[in-house]
Parts: sequence; C-alpha cells; structure tokens
Amino acid sequence: MLNKFCKKPLWECSQTLSLVASGAKKADLVILGAKLVNVCTHEILENTDVAVAQGRIACVGNCQSCIGENTLVIHANGKYLAPAFMDGHIHVESSMLSVGEYAKAVIPCGTSAIFMDPHEICNVLGLDGVKYMLEDAKHTSLKAMLTTPSCVPAVPGFEDTGATVGPKEVAETMTWEECVGLGEMMNFPGILNADEHTHAIVGETLKAGKIVTGHYSLPETAQGLNAYIASGVRCCHESTRAEDALAKMRLGMYAMLREGSAWHDLKEVAKVITQNTIDSRFACLISDDTHPDTLQNKGHLNYIVKRAIEEGIDPVTAIQMVTINVAQCFQLDHDLGSVTPSKCADMVLIDDLENCNVTEVFIDGELVAQNGKMLKTFAPYDYPAKAKNSVHLDLLTPENFRIPATGASVKIRVMEIIPARVGTFERFETMPVKDGALHADVERDVLKVAVFERHRNTGTVGYGFVKGFGIKKGAMAQTVAHDAHNLLVVGTNDEDMALASNTLIACGGGMVAVADGKILSLVPLPIAGLISDRPLEETSEKVQNLEKAWKEMGCTLPSPFMTMALIPLACLPELRLTNRGLVDCRTFQFTNLIVE
Amino acid sequence: MLNKFCKKPLWECSQTLSLVASGAKKADLVILGAKLVNVCTHEILENTDVAVAQGRIACVGNCQSCIGENTLVIHANGKYLAPAFMDGHIHVESSMLSVGEYAKAVIPCGTSAIFMDPHEICNVLGLDGVKYMLEDAKHTSLKAMLTTPSCVPAVPGFEDTGATVGPKEVAETMTWEECVGLGEMMNFPGILNADEHTHAIVGETLKAGKIVTGHYSLPETAQGLNAYIASGVRCCHESTRAEDALAKMRLGMYAMLREGSAWHDLKEVAKVITQNTIDSRFACLISDDTHPDTLQNKGHLNYIVKRAIEEGIDPVTAIQMVTINVAQCFQLDHDLGSVTPSKCADMVLIDDLENCNVTEVFIDGELVAQNGKMLKTFAPYDYPAKAKNSVHLDLLTPENFRIPATGASVKIRVMEIIPARVGTFERFETMPVKDGALHADVERDVLKVAVFERHRNTGTVGYGFVKGFGIKKGAMAQTVAHDAHNLLVVGTNDEDMALASNTLIACGGGMVAVADGKILSLVPLPIAGLISDRPLEETSEKVQNLEKAWKEMGCTLPSPFMTMALIPLACLPELRLTNRGLVDCRTFQFTNLIVE
Repeated sequence: MLNKFCKKPLWECSQTLSLVASGAKKADLVILGAKLVNVCTHEILENTDVAVAQGRIACVGNCQSCIGENTLVIHANGKYLAPAFMDGHIHVESSMLSVGEYAKAVIPCGTSAIFMDPHEICNVLGLDGVKYMLEDAKHTSLKAMLTTPSCVPAVPGFEDTGATVGPKEVAETMTWEECVGLGEMMNFPGILNADEHTHAIVGETLKAGKIVTGHYSLPETAQGLNAYIASGVRCCHESTRAEDALAKMRLGMYAMLREGSAWHDLKEVAKVITQNTIDSRFACLISDDTHPDTLQNKGHLNYIVKRAIEEGIDPVTAIQMVTINVAQCFQLDHDLGSVTPSKCADMVLIDDLENCNVTEVFIDGELVAQNGKMLKTFAPYDYPAKAKNSVHLDLLTPENFRIPATGASVKIRVMEIIPARVGTFERFETMPVKDGALHADVERDVLKVAVFERHRNTGTVGYGFVKGFGIKKGAMAQTVAHDAHNLLVVGTNDEDMALASNTLIACGGGMVAVADGKILSLVPLPIAGLISDRPLEETSEKVQNLEKAWKEMGCTLPSPFMTMALIPLACLPELRLTNRGLVDCRTFQFTNLIVE
Repeated sequence: MLNKFCKKPLWECSQTLSLVASGAKKADLVILGAKLVNVCTHEILENTDVAVAQGRIACVGNCQSCIGENTLVIHANGKYLAPAFMDGHIHVESSMLSVGEYAKAVIPCGTSAIFMDPHEICNVLGLDGVKYMLEDAKHTSLKAMLTTPSCVPAVPGFEDTGATVGPKEVAETMTWEECVGLGEMMNFPGILNADEHTHAIVGETLKAGKIVTGHYSLPETAQGLNAYIASGVRCCHESTRAEDALAKMRLGMYAMLREGSAWHDLKEVAKVITQNTIDSRFACLISDDTHPDTLQNKGHLNYIVKRAIEEGIDPVTAIQMVTINVAQCFQLDHDLGSVTPSKCADMVLIDDLENCNVTEVFIDGELVAQNGKMLKTFAPYDYPAKAKNSVHLDLLTPENFRIPATGASVKIRVMEIIPARVGTFERFETMPVKDGALHADVERDVLKVAVFERHRNTGTVGYGFVKGFGIKKGAMAQTVAHDAHNLLVVGTNDEDMALASNTLIACGGGMVAVADGKILSLVPLPIAGLISDRPLEETSEKVQNLEKAWKEMGCTLPSPFMTMALIPLACLPELRLTNRGLVDCRTFQFTNLIVE
C-alpha cells in the first residue's frame, strides 16, 4: 500500500539517500552511539549510528562519514534508539481532545502514528466530521491514518444518528490518501450471517487493497471467529482472555492487545505471549480509548509498553508490538515501523528500557519532543461552524421529562448498571404513579433517563429508568452517549434534568452535573458535542471536577460518566435506552417501559 | 497490494466463506485430522481440519459441520498440513522449460507460487517475451507472479540485446495485474552512484506500490549496502556468507537464502538462523536458478526446505521461510502464505516433515498433485512465431571465424575460466600467426571464442580466446549466453565452429556440441533460443547427453555449458567477451585482443 504519511515519497529522494549513505552527500541529522532496538531481528545492537536525510533514514551503522558542516549531530550517549510507536487502533474522541491537542499529548510519549477510527464524530457529523479531524491532524506532526468508520449507526434501526455510512461512503473514503483501511467492524453478527450490506462495506475496503480492522468480542473462537475472519477482517482488539488472542493469532488475525483507560486487558491477555512459546509477529499493543487524565498522568504507548514489560513480555518484543508488527498489519512496513534505510525517520530515544522512558522523539527526522515536552508548535486548527453547532434541539422544560402512567402503581423495566463492566441487567421494579406520571425514586436508587434525538431535531425521545448510580440529588446530561451521541439525561427530578439539558444545548454539547437548580460542573465539548476546543490540562481538570461532582451527588463509581455514556449502546446486553425507546439487546427488539 | 492470483477475489466470496465457516453452507473440500503447521504462531497443532469453499479457506479447526453431501472429504490421517510453498526469486528460463512444463515439475513438489524474473527472455524478446511466459503460466495452476526485469541489458553499452527496459517499460508493466514488483536490481553500482535512470526504474515500481527485489553481491555490508537498501530495494538473494544475510536482515531487507542448482549457498548462509537467536521473519528460502536435472532428481522448494532442516533450521521455521515470510515480503499475506480463513486454499500435505516429503498439493482448493505426480492436466501453450524465430543470423562459414593477425607471433589476452566459480582471470599468451590469422591451440588449452549478435542481424561480432575447458577437438555453440543471449561459439577449429553455429541458426537456438564435422549432441531451445518446447524428461535427457559430449571432447568440468554461458556476462570479473569485443570488467572498458 502506498503511504502518504512521509515528508517525501521515497522515489523523490532515493538518490539523495543513496548518496548520503555512501558519504557522498551529507546527512541532515546523525544520531551517534545509540543502542539500537532492532525490531527486524529482535536484537539490541550496541553503538549504532543513524543518518537521516529528507526525513528518511539513509544509513544505520557507522555514520561518521555522513556528517557535514550542516548536519545536526545528536549524541545518544548509550540511550536506546527504537522506531517511534504506532497505535494500531484508537478513537481520538475518547480523549475529548481535538487531534491537535491529542497530538501534543501523545507525541512526547513516543507516538508518531495512530490508526484512528473516528466513529464518534462520524455518528454526529458524517464524513464531514471525519474530514475535519483529518484536517486538524494535518496541522500536526502526528501521522493520523484513517480507518473509515464501518458501523454508523452502530445498531441500525434502533437509534437515530447524524449520519449513516454504507458501502458507497466507504468506497469514497478509500480514494482518500489518508485512508489506510476500514475501522472496527463491530457488526460481527452481520458478518456471520452473511448480510449483504455488511459484507459490501468490508468488500469496498478489500477492493481498494486496504486493511479491514475488526471487533470480535465473543468468547466463541471456533466457527464464529472463523466466519468473521473469513470475510477479510485482519485484526481485532477485543480479546480479554489470553486464549481468545491466541485463537485469533493462530487464525492469522493480528491480536491487538488493549490497555485503555477503562479497559485494562493487558494483565490477562499478555499471557498469550508470556505463557506460550509462539511467534509474536501477529500481536500488537493498542489503547483503543484513552481519557485525558490517563494521557496526562500515565502516557500513551510508552505506558502500555511498560505495562507489557511488567507483565513479563520481553522489552524488544513489546517494542516490536508497537512498531514493526503494526506496520506489517497495515502493510506499511516499507515506510514505517523500523529503523532501517529508506524508512521514515520516526524514532525515539529511551533512557530506561524497562520503564520505556522516552526522552527524545523524532518524526520525519525532526526532533519534535524532548523530555516529555513538545519542542515543535502546531498552528491550531479551528473547526468549522458546522462542527461546533451539532446540538439541534430546542430548549426543554421539565414537562419534556414527564413519563405519564395510569393507576396507582405500575411494574416497569429498569436498566441496572454493573460497576466497572460494560453490560447492564434488566430488572423490574414496581413504581407508584403520582400526578399521573412516573418519577425517580432515590431511596431505591431508581433514576429517570431520557434520550433526545439531537441531530435533526426530529423530536423523538426515549424514556426509561436506571439503577446503580447511587445519585441522591440533581441530574446529569451528556452528548457523549454511544454511539449515536444523542442528548442523554439521567436525574432525580425533572427540573434539574431540564436544566442539565439546556446547559448543554446552550454550549454546544458536553457533560454536565446539576443539583438544586445549580450547575455543579460542566465539561463543554463544543466540537460535535464530543470534543473540547481547549488544551489537555484544562480539559483534564474539568473532567476531574465533573467526577468530583458525581461523588458529591452520591455516586461512588469510577468514571461514572463513562458508564452513563453506554446507556444508549444497543449492541451491548441486556437492556438499553435509545432515542427511539427501550431495547432488549438479547433479542434485538424494542420493549415497553411499563410491563403491567 | 491486490492479488489477482486467486480463484475469486475475496470480496466476491466472503459471504459464502462466512456461511461455510459457521456451517450454514457446505464446503467444497474438507481435510480432516491434520497436524497443522501453523506458520503464524510457529506451532504444530494436532488434529486440525480445514474447510474450503470457492478456492479459499473458510474454516480451520473443527470442520465437521462444514461437510455436506457434495463436499470432497480427505482424511489427512495425521499428515502435516502446511501452506503450499512460494519461491520468492526464480528465473524459469534456467530450467530450459516452458512455464507450463516448469509448472508440471514444481507443483508436485509443493510449489503453488513463484515470483519470476524473466530477464533472460526479456533480453531476447523484450516485454513481448515476458507476456508470452505470463500467457504460458495462465494455462497452469502455478501462480507465476511477475517481477519485471530491471536490467535489460545487464551491462548497457557493452553488448547488444534484443530489447531494452527503461523506466517507461517498467511503468507500463506495473499496470499489469500479474506484476507484483521489480526483478532483481543487479545494477547496484547505478544505485550507489545515484544514477538517474537506475533510480527511476526503482521509482516507477515504488510509485505503483509494488515490491523492488534486489541483487547485492558485494561482501561490503556497511555504507554500500545501506546506500543500496535506502533506494527502496526490499530483498536480496545474493548472500553467500551468513554475516551478509544477517547484515541485510538487520537493515530490514529480506534475506533470500539460495539453494540453486549451481549455487549451493545454504550450507553457509543457513548459519544466519542456526548460529544466531534472531527473529527469522526476514528470511526466505529461494532457488534462483534450477536446471532440469535438479527438478527431476531433487525437487524444488521441498528439497530446499529439507536442505535447510539438514543444516539445523527448525522445520516450522524452514516452512515459514517459504510461506508466510515470502508473502509478507511481497505484502501479499492477506491472500497467500498461511492456512487461515479467507486465504487462498494453497496447501500441502507432508508425511515426513524432516524430509519435507510432500504427498498432496492443493491450489485454490483443488487437489492438483499427489505422490509426486500431477493430477491436473494443462492445455499446452504454443509460443507464437516471433518467440520461435529469435535467431536472426545468416548462415556462417569458417571464414567468419578467422581472426587476422600479422607478424610471426603476437601476445594476446585470454580469458581463463575458474572451475565451479563465476569469475574469470585475465591471462596472456603468445600465439603463432599462421596464414595471417590466429588459431586455437589445443596443446595449451587455448580455444577460440566468437560472439555473434543474433537479435537484429547487425553483423557485429566479438572474438577472443579462452582457457580452462580442456576440449581436445570440435566446437560448442549456444544461444544461452548471459545476459544478451547472443550466439556464443567456442572451438578448436573454424569448420566445426561454423557447423555448430549453423546447427543452432537452423533450429532456432539451443546448445550444441560438434566434432569432426558431425553433431555429437544438440539441445534445441527454439523458444527465444533459451527454452525447450519439449517435456522435462526429454529436455533433461538431452542436457545430460550434451554434458556427456563435452566429456568425450575432453572437458571434465561439471555443467560446462553453464560456465561457458557466462563468458559474455560483462558485469563479472575479470575479462569477458561480448558481441562488441573484449571487456575488462575491472575498469569497465573495452580492451584489445592483441596486446603487442
């Protein structure tokens, strides 16, 4: 596959590179005396130099003769030199940061490239949203490669999104130079059942010679997994057990082992490497979803490599899993993923290999970050008005939250969340009817939920009840509400629910906590209702404040806004609420709130 | 990269494959109870089934439910099941067989795919010759992928060929669906010196997103090798020492370890794997040049895998080196190189792993060979008249071999061949002048040589003398004369030299030995003067007869016609003869026969 993520295509600079390697021309940059982490042969090679010209590596070995008077010479002083890291599967939107701010956060961690699946913004703004993020990325040094969102909407027929993606849209994006493949194909039932539309989405990617990334979260690794892989899906990041990852690797699928902010898979899945003596070329390390505080306090792939080493994976193997293996997965190893001649000079220096402590980061031969700080500045990208005006809803009143009912009491379905898990249980509660309507019951921890379609102002709204958050007062609202990202409101009373909603409608989306008619905490996410237009530190602080507000209101869950955001995700069991109503996710059928 | 070498593109059959994997549709073929050689994880997995539909693998594991009433069921009975073998670098012309006959020879050995560089025929017939071979290949099950000849002529300015290949021709072939890359870039001086034309040939390949294969035969593995790889060359089969192969792998170059008929590199280069504890993903096993008797008596990649195992390489590693590693080198691993769902069902059954004894061969899911015999028959391809009429020379007379000289004696330059080596030495001899001309001297083993341009009947001819063959009578002629393949004649007297020449002119080329006015042995190679139109057995027998004739005439070298064929190859040291005259290959200048 061609790769446009380089300073110059190789054919435009190969003559220069050959001349620099042989010493006839001088390099732009020479790094002297490093311990090379050779990801091709799985070795550490002492005292190795690297010469760079035109953003690419010209020579690896002894590069004294490549040094001229205009050559920048950096003495590695025995630090480890490795290829810069690549994240094979990431949703930037999870960081709540623009791509520009995200790049500033991850580049100093050693990340030069991400394979991003912007399916959150795509649900809101369609391919326009994807284009905005690509444009944002172009203002940075980060190589943000697109995998086109494959499942927009995530659960067709059960929710309303701002856009849909079908084979036609996928085919269009495959002509984009930033596009290297298809984003995670979450619709594995569609694949397994040979659904025409789903296979066509995969097919348009294959026709373009690009890579299909996957999402197979079932514990079944026999015929179902075979049926899924047989369609052409090449990788999957959804293994939570070592045996799942092993089954995938044996079937020629790249197992992308995840250590995200919320999904700590590595402790278990690292065993696929540490407890087997297998070839590890089909294993990668990825982050999937990373929150701002994780980026700020732990890092990105540097942290995940460190975690892999803690779990017993050999350091060179761990680095292979974020470099050459990722490049081979995406068939971009001719340009990326190793410190070898002709490749893009994307490299890191590391002073402590066990802790993967990255001290210098080079992208296209340029020293862009040092000691955890960006050296290079990026011109900010201003998202267009369409992106910042994505909450299409009239202001709400408490009346909009009224759930009418008759009789003295009714039995209703309630979604019960499970702490630190993505699933919910379907429960039943008998609720009193007051003033001809149903109300939250703080004593029994039964809160009211509403989901308002917010993309086209269609007026559709779903109502339900949820257990498990432990909130004693007030309400929360957020436009981060997977995957359709409609306006999701949870609360103890209709007045606060209306206030929370209107606060977000006014600011263009985000996350908010209110109580007793007052705003306790607000995270404005004006870009598509998903992304902040502020720096990492500020966004991270606001998110932490929101978490504090939840605590004050009685919730003891970690990152409860994450759990809340999954309430509408109708592909997860058991009971969910979308803007169209309650969905039984075991039978994939709408169901009634009031049972009897 | 897209791959057209499959029964159906994946996107046309992915629905069927998914349904077969899940048991909803039935497979065309199921192999039961094999020991799977898993090249992805480097494991042998007991009791594994494989289900195939539409020529591709649908399921690997337990495939009982994929069996229907029309499913062909084969019981592996505990045999090993591996991906079929792929030869990453091969010149079919060396076998003197048409591609059809070559396919019949190698498929029963377990070969499903070759990456062929038809630079011999291209020197004679240009891209038309390449097209003929591709057309021939299409009549067979063998996946004959083209790497476009990169160096035609091999040594520009020093010889006349039937065609030239430049960047324009390379660009044209990159649009051909059979083309997966560029053939061995032998002109490493052109790369190292940043020659525009040479880099453009590479560049046109890179622009097309295809693979540049290499040829770097220097023992220098520092700046020169870096300069070579920096141009974008991805693999090289010219390592004869383990340290050369290691240097290449460390620089991200695929080291293609060779065991050809004449080049027995493996004993030495296998040590790169056996004497290091490195990741072997950048190593492949290839044949380069295989003669008919090797194919007949030893085999193809099955023999080379066996040899690798004999040298101490782990059997699964050796099989990776002819399957997944080759597929990854050419970025075709999404379609080829592993027994995993979605891939082409190119597979072998092996009953004895150490000896790599292949008993069944499947290509695109079809059982095409069994117990060393082809089961499938191929419609023969008839090469067009242009291919069979490539010796454009008028009949010669003894007078055409006369080398005039004056005086009583002269000192001349003589090429001395080195037994079992490709080089020659420059020697000097003082020769008597008789009848105003120079003659061969059998006593001193100094034979006359002439090279006649035979592509355009330009009348150019080069004369010289050679030492080392030990021939006591008669003459030999051949149109296999690297790389320009002009008419090359060696002999003791002008009459026999004319007879040998005219014999080949009459039959369209080949190899011949004559003595005392009689033809002792003739190998007709009517296709381009390089390739037989007869079956392997017949061709092999004729070549053996020719070797016998050489022996009868006094030559004790093994395969002396091979050594003879290199006399015109002006890129090898020290002294060579082309149709334009004697070339000093140390200075790359023409030189005189008569010194004083």
